[in-house]
Amino acid sequence: MALWAVNMHVDAVFYEAFAEEERALRAHLPPDISARFTWKTIQESGDPVPPAPVISIRTQSTLPTPWAAHLRAILSRSTGYDHLVDYRNRVTADLQLGYLPLYCNRAVAEHAMLLWMGLLRRLPRQLRQFGSFQRDGLTGAECRGRTLLVVGVGHIGHEIVDIGRGLGMRVLGVDPVRRWDDVTYVSFDEAAPVADVVVAAMNLTPASRGFFNSLRLLQLRAGAVFVNVARGELAEAEALLAALQRGALAGVGLDVYDQEPELAVALRSGSSTPSAAVDAVLALAQRDDVLCTPHNAFNTCESVERKSAQSIEQLEHLRRTGRFLWPVP
Amino acid sequence: MALWAVNMHVDAVFYEAFAEEERALRAHLPPDISARFTWKTIQESGDPVPPAPVISIRTQSTLPTPWAAHLRAILSRSTGYDHLVDYRNRVTADLQLGYLPLYCNRAVAEHAMLLWMGLLRRLPRQLRQFGSFQRDGLTGAECRGRTLLVVGVGHIGHEIVDIGRGLGMRVLGVDPVRRWDDVTYVSFDEAAPVADVVVAAMNLTPASRGFFNSLRLLQLRAGAVFVNVARGELAEAEALLAALQRGALAGVGLDVYDQEPELAVALRSGSSTPSAAVDAVLALAQRDDVLCTPHNAFNTCESVERKSAQSIEQLEHLRRTGRFLWPVP
Repeated sequence: MALWAVNMHVDAVFYEAFAEEERALRAHLPPDISARFTWKTIQESGDPVPPAPVISIRTQSTLPTPWAAHLRAILSRSTGYDHLVDYRNRVTADLQLGYLPLYCNRAVAEHAMLLWMGLLRRLPRQLRQFGSFQRDGLTGAECRGRTLLVVGVGHIGHEIVDIGRGLGMRVLGVDPVRRWDDVTYVSFDEAAPVADVVVAAMNLTPASRGFFNSLRLLQLRAGAVFVNVARGELAEAEALLAALQRGALAGVGLDVYDQEPELAVALRSGSSTPSAAVDAVLALAQRDDVLCTPHNAFNTCESVERKSAQSIEQLEHLRRTGRFLWPVP
Repeated sequence: MALWAVNMHVDAVFYEAFAEEERALRAHLPPDISARFTWKTIQESGDPVPPAPVISIRTQSTLPTPWAAHLRAILSRSTGYDHLVDYRNRVTADLQLGYLPLYCNRAVAEHAMLLWMGLLRRLPRQLRQFGSFQRDGLTGAECRGRTLLVVGVGHIGHEIVDIGRGLGMRVLGVDPVRRWDDVTYVSFDEAAPVADVVVAAMNLTPASRGFFNSLRLLQLRAGAVFVNVARGELAEAEALLAALQRGALAGVGLDVYDQEPELAVALRSGSSTPSAAVDAVLALAQRDDVLCTPHNAFNTCESVERKSAQSIEQLEHLRRTGRFLWPVP
């Protein structure tokens, strides 16, 4: 792979790789590809120029515009690729861009269910009140018989539909593309007033950005719980906070965040931030009707294994053919 | 109802009633039955003698032997009635004893699932690590395709079987009475080495007390998670702690506790206790591979409503016929 690494020490750098993922990636890496791994984002790493011709990120690094001229390819180890499309629109270089479809559908869907069950049963309060063995204010709701609304029924959304049905819920789906025969599709306007659990599972596109704004949250049933396992930018943190404060929502479960890169840096550095969205997320995380997980819905041993295997498959295909096996459309 | 309340100020006293339950009970109470409510156990209340001819408890009050001579009836607002059987064996008075079958099967089953999902996905760590937005050590396991072992397949266990199947798990049941046609029954010895999730859902009887002792926990697969939503005395807290410490279990989810009355008093009073079992529970609750909830699995709005309606139905039946509608067998 020396061809790629002219004047560079390694062939590829993996940013945002956590411990278990690094172990799995190393296990799949062939001996003739040299790679460096870090849990940091590009910004946290402080790298002034690309340290390798191929870089791999997840969704929290901001790709520096000047890097494009020095890069051959970027692989995002994520199912979403909106950030790569944005980058392609900003730069002129001819870059290969790749992503990872299909590696974590079930993991994300099961995580969404864990969040809505935790909210329906007031788990944060239950865990706290174990300390006094008091049950006041802990009465929750059963999910069987309640209505689940899945907004965005792609591969992940379809698994969420399957889980909701398995739990005896009434399941409705909202998606402009009605690709699955076994889903009961409705419009958001019809479904919003009757849903007990609403899960955001759509791609981030210019059309879906900010979909769950104040007006749409107002359409939901009072007492509904809202879960986002897709992209933070689909739902404004300030609108979610306001909906909880006025009692329009009974709970919010988030694995992804509005301005997530800034949030991650603020949380890791402990520094304050001037961003209202980040402040709203921090206020949400303090509440006991909110469950916040660190963009971890994908993170099962099954998914990490599939993700690492597919990442290395992408690099080997790139080396062999000059293109990724799963290129960004 | 004055007949009952000779020289007493009220007809019935409800111990261990939390806020939502008291509201629901009052809503069902007919005007001609006078009742008093407290969240305290009999011991916490300090009542030296029975304050009414009929008392209602849950499972944390210890029934004083001398009270039997002054009581007409005891209603336990619980599905389990082992504590009433114990009391009947200790006293000579002819008491009416009642309990509440069937009011919370689904609520308890859904709670068991929430606990095992939270353990499979390392939820306590995820919630903590949101604070640093770090994912090291957070890789969990998907439940689809894994094996669920339900030990005790009564009404609650049967709902747990249904949920496991709905989530795409392989489900096995252990019960000396094979009452359901749709359950795959096995022996504990066969199933223990292959189960990923083990749920205790049996009645507490002299035969089942301490069933999950050190030897049986040793039979389980390394990496299995264990959940108890039935009775604390089925599994010794010290044995569970030891199994986690040596890595034999990957997680423990508890809603019920060995020596729960002593535990509840110790937690509420903040006082230390000489009990090794209580100390072991407190040590378990500190771990991030453990989820502890305060005997709250039953606690959904659906169950509280059914429970309160059935409690008052029991009292009215007792007044009308001299016997409970659902007497302790």
